[in-house]
Amino acid sequence: MPSLSPSLDKLIDALKRLPGLGPRSASRIAQHLLADEKVQALALAHALEQAVKNIKRCELCNTLTDSELCPICADEARDKTKICVVESPADQQALEETMAYRGRYFVLMGLISPVQGVGAERLHLQKLLNRVQDDRDLKEILIATPFTPEGDATAHFIAKAVSARRNDVRVSRYARGIPAGVELEYTDANTIASAIFGRR
Amino acid sequence: MPSLSPSLDKLIDALKRLPGLGPRSASRIAQHLLADEKVQALALAHALEQAVKNIKRCELCNTLTDSELCPICADEARDKTKICVVESPADQQALEETMAYRGRYFVLMGLISPVQGVGAERLHLQKLLNRVQDDRDLKEILIATPFTPEGDATAHFIAKAVSARRNDVRVSRYARGIPAGVELEYTDANTIASAIFGRR
Repeated sequence: MPSLSPSLDKLIDALKRLPGLGPRSASRIAQHLLADEKVQALALAHALEQAVKNIKRCELCNTLTDSELCPICADEARDKTKICVVESPADQQALEETMAYRGRYFVLMGLISPVQGVGAERLHLQKLLNRVQDDRDLKEILIATPFTPEGDATAHFIAKAVSARRNDVRVSRYARGIPAGVELEYTDANTIASAIFGRR
Repeated sequence: MPSLSPSLDKLIDALKRLPGLGPRSASRIAQHLLADEKVQALALAHALEQAVKNIKRCELCNTLTDSELCPICADEARDKTKICVVESPADQQALEETMAYRGRYFVLMGLISPVQGVGAERLHLQKLLNRVQDDRDLKEILIATPFTPEGDATAHFIAKAVSARRNDVRVSRYARGIPAGVELEYTDANTIASAIFGRR
């Protein structure tokens, strides 16, 4: 069949590279946008360009933010004795929504995964370890990576690396109240809160 | 919680308006693009802008295309005696892939749906009916809308409107029956009944 529209094909192609979208849903989205919602399509293009332009990593905690320091790191009222290590900004947001944790964060933006060739250096762990070494207020690292093989490997690596640098910093992992294999961002607030209070 | 990044929030907001995406998948896609794939994010923004700029409706069949006439309508080798009426360019493509139909098309870009307030005028049906009236080569309209209440209502409306204009144009609808490779026991009663009534 001759292509009806090379521009449509290119748009479907770009959409189906997004995580969680296949060729059918990409084609449905593209047709929806071009048939009825051209304004929405341009708004999405603009939001993409603005986000690419504005978003950087927080200098302290590595999360996605528009400023040098994210609002949480910049907040003087947060508990400076604790750092919670999470996989992603979505996990960080899920924790924030519980209101059970008032310390600071370090956002890995991934997990150690030998299978996918992601090592410690890809996760900017040096940034965390420098902070552990230099920050004399710090008393505790709470590791909130998921209970998956990658999450366990990452937690293990961080615990070992922190202990090697400071023996006065307590390293804990949130309690296994979160079902194994389930991502933090898909868990309800109560379960997350219990896991934080039950940390050992 | 203070927003970590207004640009990220705006992007998630634009993504979650797309059909089939909820807040979780929108947030996952946004973080994927901004953390690792800024080039891909810009490519998507560019594809959206190009598509909005280039895509129009085919003057004859109403499908999405980059030119005045889509490649199928422009193809002199296609059978001019038949028009197949489909809901969307995706349905049109599915039919083309069968190689079982060599006529032309009319693409509704929707279905009549009183519940959603979509009437005949939204579907540019006047364009189809003018074509039925003027095109003396035309001998048959094959209606390929889905077997849903909206698909049935649309088929019924078109059949009535065409018969009112031309009595020498045959109006048919594609056969309802058991799909190839599907077990009878997993097929709904309506479909089985139609397959029995439509036996040859």
